[in-house]
Order: sequence, then structure tokens, then C-alpha cells
Amino acid sequence: MTEQALLDAISLDAAGLVAAVAQQHDTGEVLMLAWMNREAVCQTLATGNAVYWSRSRQALWRKGETSGQVQRVVSLRIDCDGDAVLLRVDQTGVACHTGRRSCFFREAQSGEWVTIAEVEIDPAALYGSPGQEV
Amino acid sequence: MTEQALLDAISLDAAGLVAAVAQQHDTGEVLMLAWMNREAVCQTLATGNAVYWSRSRQALWRKGETSGQVQRVVSLRIDCDGDAVLLRVDQTGVACHTGRRSCFFREAQSGEWVTIAEVEIDPAALYGSPGQEV
Repeated sequence: MTEQALLDAISLDAAGLVAAVAQQHDTGEVLMLAWMNREAVCQTLATGNAVYWSRSRQALWRKGETSGQVQRVVSLRIDCDGDAVLLRVDQTGVACHTGRRSCFFREAQSGEWVTIAEVEIDPAALYGSPGQEV
Repeated sequence: MTEQALLDAISLDAAGLVAAVAQQHDTGEVLMLAWMNREAVCQTLATGNAVYWSRSRQALWRKGETSGQVQRVVSLRIDCDGDAVLLRVDQTGVACHTGRRSCFFREAQSGEWVTIAEVEIDPAALYGSPGQEV
């Protein structure tokens, strides 16, 4: 199993998770922060598309499975102490369940969070049923 | 207190922490992932330089205080569910305690983690004493 060496270097937290930052590979835009467990890493490596662990649903989250907003993984990096990974991806459409490109669409300005990005896809069009993740 | 509205939107975990991604503001390079507690966010807002919470030392970590490798915060963003923040920074020197620009200097290639970035500053030159964070 060629993935073993990769998995062994990942330091999982008490819940068995590692923080995962997804970044659009060419523009550098930080799209989202999510979590992966061991199986999510394995499936990401096996399929070439980002698979996370949904903490809210306590289930594997094949990003874009219901919405079509998949993330093709261009490269996978790990940080110095092994407790965070960086996925450089090619994001189809939008990363955020609000229909915005990035989940980081609010910026601190004059003591308030100001929305700095427009909705690109109607959230209603992203879901098979309410409450699902994108 | 103008920071109150900002702080109220941040969803801290059971340990009182929020994940914080630091990105070089102009190049888009993801430099590191760290953690902030409420006080770290306050001090970051007050000083304009990134302040984190060191989970290993269980203490505030004024990034660059001993090493000089400070991060001037250009903007602060928050994600859709408020449990992650993105600091767009201007990094002096290097972000990583290994002396590399980014902590994400290993990439998965053919089943192994391959080092893809050179050491730019001798780690010995970054520390006042061994084991301190940069």
C-alpha cells in the first residue's frame, strides 16, 4: 500500500481528524477549511477528488457528491508538524454552501464582518435536500 | 469595544480555540495553520500583528516575538460557519520554525512526502532558546 507512508506522517487529533485547507491551485484563493480522517485521506488519494469528514454529520463527505461542486486534487501537502494538510485543488463552481466561491467571504472592516464576495450559484440549486453539505 | 461584534461571530471549539490559516496577502502562499483563542484574536486586532495560541506551550504566541519573523495582518476573514479564520498577512522572513517560508513544504509524490522548499534561514538563527516557536 503506497499510501501507508503518507498516512503515517499525518498526526491525527484525539477525534482522529486532521485540519485540511483547500486552496485553488492557480489563483491561490483559500476556499475552505475542513477536516479529514484517515479514511477521507485514503479516499482522496484513491479518487483524486477531495473527500472530507463532516463533523456535523459524523460521516464521510465526498465534496460535491450531491452538488457537483467537486474539488479535483492537484497536489497534497502536509505541514511541519503533520497536523494540517493543504489540498491544492481545482474547484468546480463554488466551495461554499452559501453559493460563494470561498467560505471566507466575510472580512473585518471597522469592527464589523463585511461580506466581500457575491453569491455565484443559488444555494437552492446546490442541494438535493436542505441541510446537506456542498 | 468595537471588537465585540467581531468576536461574537467566532465559534470557538470546546478548548476555546478557532483554527487560523495564515496566507501571504500578495502571493497567495499558504504559510501555516495555527490556533487562536479569544485573547489572541483581541491582541491581533489591537496590535495589527498575528498573535496565536500555542497548544504545545498553552500560552499566547506572539508570532515572531523571539525570532523577528512577524506577520503584519493585512486583513482578517472568517468562514461561513465561523469556526475558522483566514489571516492575510505580510510575512517577514519565514513562517516555519524549520526556516522555510511556509510550513507546508512537503508534498505527496509517488506515495512519499517530498520536501519541495529550501531552508531560507538557519533555524538556529531564529530562536532565543531551543524549542521556542517562531
